[in-house]
Amino acid sequence: MIVETLAVGTELLLGQIVNSNAAVIGARLAEVGFDHYHQAVVGDNVDRIAAAIRLATSRADALIITGGIGPTQDDLTREAMCAAAGVAMRFDDEYAARLRRWWERRGREMPESNLRQAQHPEGAALLVNRKGTAPGLRLRIGRSWVFAVPGVPAEMLPLLDEEILPFLRTEAGETGVVVSRLIRTWGESESRVGELMADLFESGRNPTLAFLASSGEIKVRVTAKAGDAAAAEALIAPVEAEVRRRMGPLVFGVDDETVEHVLFAELARRRWTIATAESATGGMIAERITAVPGASDHFVGAVVAYAPAVKESLLGVPGEVIAQHGVVSEPVALAMADGAATRLGADVVIAVTGSAGPDPLERGVGTMIVAVRTPEDARARTLQMPGDRERVRVYTTTAALHLTRLAVAGAWWGSVPDRWGARSRS
Amino acid sequence: MIVETLAVGTELLLGQIVNSNAAVIGARLAEVGFDHYHQAVVGDNVDRIAAAIRLATSRADALIITGGIGPTQDDLTREAMCAAAGVAMRFDDEYAARLRRWWERRGREMPESNLRQAQHPEGAALLVNRKGTAPGLRLRIGRSWVFAVPGVPAEMLPLLDEEILPFLRTEAGETGVVVSRLIRTWGESESRVGELMADLFESGRNPTLAFLASSGEIKVRVTAKAGDAAAAEALIAPVEAEVRRRMGPLVFGVDDETVEHVLFAELARRRWTIATAESATGGMIAERITAVPGASDHFVGAVVAYAPAVKESLLGVPGEVIAQHGVVSEPVALAMADGAATRLGADVVIAVTGSAGPDPLERGVGTMIVAVRTPEDARARTLQMPGDRERVRVYTTTAALHLTRLAVAGAWWGSVPDRWGARSRS
Repeated sequence: MIVETLAVGTELLLGQIVNSNAAVIGARLAEVGFDHYHQAVVGDNVDRIAAAIRLATSRADALIITGGIGPTQDDLTREAMCAAAGVAMRFDDEYAARLRRWWERRGREMPESNLRQAQHPEGAALLVNRKGTAPGLRLRIGRSWVFAVPGVPAEMLPLLDEEILPFLRTEAGETGVVVSRLIRTWGESESRVGELMADLFESGRNPTLAFLASSGEIKVRVTAKAGDAAAAEALIAPVEAEVRRRMGPLVFGVDDETVEHVLFAELARRRWTIATAESATGGMIAERITAVPGASDHFVGAVVAYAPAVKESLLGVPGEVIAQHGVVSEPVALAMADGAATRLGADVVIAVTGSAGPDPLERGVGTMIVAVRTPEDARARTLQMPGDRERVRVYTTTAALHLTRLAVAGAWWGSVPDRWGARSRS
Repeated sequence: MIVETLAVGTELLLGQIVNSNAAVIGARLAEVGFDHYHQAVVGDNVDRIAAAIRLATSRADALIITGGIGPTQDDLTREAMCAAAGVAMRFDDEYAARLRRWWERRGREMPESNLRQAQHPEGAALLVNRKGTAPGLRLRIGRSWVFAVPGVPAEMLPLLDEEILPFLRTEAGETGVVVSRLIRTWGESESRVGELMADLFESGRNPTLAFLASSGEIKVRVTAKAGDAAAAEALIAPVEAEVRRRMGPLVFGVDDETVEHVLFAELARRRWTIATAESATGGMIAERITAVPGASDHFVGAVVAYAPAVKESLLGVPGEVIAQHGVVSEPVALAMADGAATRLGADVVIAVTGSAGPDPLERGVGTMIVAVRTPEDARARTLQMPGDRERVRVYTTTAALHLTRLAVAGAWWGSVPDRWGARSRS
C-alpha cells in the first residue's frame, strides 16, 4: 500500500507554522508498514490543490490531505476534491442539522458560514470528527482512496487512527496486526540511549526500534507485525526485556503510563496527597498535574511564590534563610516545601526555585533547584538545564515530577545520573 | 520569481524529524517577495529525487533542495541533479584538497567517503559552506536555477541568506518587498470573523487576507507586495483600517503584541501588580503569565486552590459562601479574588473556578467562572466552553487574560459578546 500526504495551507508555505502533521502521519504509516514516498504542501488555491490530488492519485493507492476543510472561504479542499474527481458538490441536510444542534447546545447562534462544513463531494463518505465540527471525508478518485481531515492535530489524529488506517489496512487485505510497545525512560540523553541500543536498532527488522525524545524523556518504541496480537507480543517480549535490561531503573513506564500516572499510582499506594510550591516554573508543575483527569484525588493545591515577599508571607520561608543563601538555593527550596506542607496540608510537596532566564537571577540561567518533601524525608537537588526560558521550565517540570515519583516510591534518587546535579542534601 | 522547495531524506517521510527547514525557507521567501506555491519531500532515492527536480523545474523559476549532499551512500541529491539535467558527474581536485586540509587541521584522518562531497554535476557552481564540509551547489536546469544545500539548519541558513536569496533577487531584477500586518482579535469564532471579512477576502489580491485561529483568538493577516516598505504599508493601511472598523473593540493588538504583552502594558500604565487564584485551570494562567520574560515586574504570585479546603484556608473564602452557592459559582470566584488580593498583596487578581471535565463538578462540564478584581471594581462572568478538559482549560485561560486586560483598561466587558456568559455581576 503506497500512501502520499498532502498538507493544504498558505500559512505552511509562508512558514508561519511547521508541518508537524506530516511527521506524525509518516511515523504512523511506517508503523503499519505502508510505503510513504511523497509529501507535498500547497496553498489555499483550488487549482493547485486539485493538481496535487491528480498527481498523487496517479501514482499512489491512497492520499491523506490535511487542512482546508474548515468553515472559512480559504478552506478549499472540498472544492479541489470535486475538481479532481469531476463530481459535483452536495449539501448534507442531516449534517447541517447536526451542526446547528452543536451550536445550540452551547447556547450560541451558528454563523451561516459553518454550513460549508455540511458540503461534500458527491460520493464522499463522511468520517465522524469527535474533536471538532468539520467531518473528515473519504472519496474514491481513479484507483486511489483520497482522505481529507482537519489540519488541527487534535482533530486529525483520531481520524487517522480510528478511520483512515484501519480502512486502508482492510483494503490492503492485511489481516495481520501491528503492535507497538512504548518503553518510557528518563535520566539519559537521546544520543546516549541511541548508543546503548545501537545494535538492536541496526538489526531490527521485526520488531523495529525507534527513539522519540520529548521534554527530557526518551521513549523507545518497539513495533512488531504478525498474524495476530499474541504473535506480535511474542516478538516484542524478548526485545522489550533486553531494552529494560540495558536501561535499568531509568525505565518508568510503558505505553500510556506517563510520569503523572505513575506518580498518582504511587501516591494512591501511600495514601499521600501532594502540593507544589513554585517560583521559576510559575505554576507549570501544578498545571501539568491538574491536566490529568482525577487529579483532585491526590492534588491539594499550589502556591506560586514569584515575588520573594510571597515566599515569606504565604510559605513562611524565613527572611534570614533568603538573606543568607539567596533565593536560588537548596535551603530556600526546602523551606518552601516545608511551608507548603503545613499551609496547604499536603503530605508531599514539590518545590522549585531557580533562574529560568533570559536574565540571570543570582545564579546563572538554567540553574534550577528542585526540593521534594515526603512524610519520610526531604531532599533538594541542583540541576543545570540547557536552552531558553521555555525549555528550562519544561525540562525542570519533567525532572521535578520524576524526582518526586522516585521519592514517593522510597527510591531517593540513587538511580538518577550525576549530571542532573552534583550536590544532594538531606 | 516563483520558487519551490524540496526536502530530501527518508527520515522526514518516516516522521523521525520534522521538516522545519521548509518553514524557515518559506518565511524568508515571503519576506523577499518571492512566490512559493509548492513544497515537497522525497526519500533517499535517485529516481524520485530526479523526478521531483524535473517537476519543479517545469513550473518554477528556482528550486531550493535541502538535504542529500552529505558524505554517505544515501546522500543522492548530486546524482539526481545529474540525471535531471542530463549532465555528467565531475570530481573537483581543488575541493578534495581543501577537504583533506579541513580534516588535517583537526588532527584527524579523513574517511574516504568524504570525497563524495568533492563531486558535483558538470556546470554547477560551488557555494562555500562556512559551517560544514559539504559545499552548496547551483545549477541551471532548463529555465530554472536549482540550488542544493545541506539539511542541517545551521549550515542551510547561511547559504540561503548569503548565497541563494541575493543571487535570485539580482536575477529577478527585484527590489520590492513583502510586508504583513497581523491583526489580533478575541471574542468571536473563526467562522464569524470569516463572514465579517468575506468580501475583503474575496476581492483581496494585493493585499491578501488570511485567517489564523489559536487558543480562542482569531488573527487576520494582511499581506502586501510593493516596491518598498512604505508603498506596501500604504497598501495595507486602508485594509487594516477596514478590518479594525468591522471588528471594533475585538481587536486588541497587532503583529507580536500578544494578550500578555497588552496586559503588561496596561498594568505598567496603572502601576498595578497582578496575581491569580485558580481552581479548575490549575495554575495555567500563572504559567502563561510567567512564560513572558519580565513577568516579575508585574506578577506577584498565585494560589492554586484545588481542594475546597484550600479555598478556605489559603484564600479565606467563607465556608458559608461555598455551602450556599457551590464551588462553581460567581460568589466563590469573587471571594477567591478578594482573598488573593489581601494575602498575596496584589492590586489585580484573576480568579477562576469551574468544571473542566471529564466528570461534571456541580455544574456541567465546560461551565467556567472568571472573576477579575482591580482596585476600582470586581466582576465575575460565567462562560460555557466547548471541548475536552485541555481545550476548556486553554480557552478559559485565554478568556481570563482578555477579560483582565479589558478590566485593567477600565473597559469592563461591554464589548465582549454575550455568548461569553449570560450573567454578569458587580
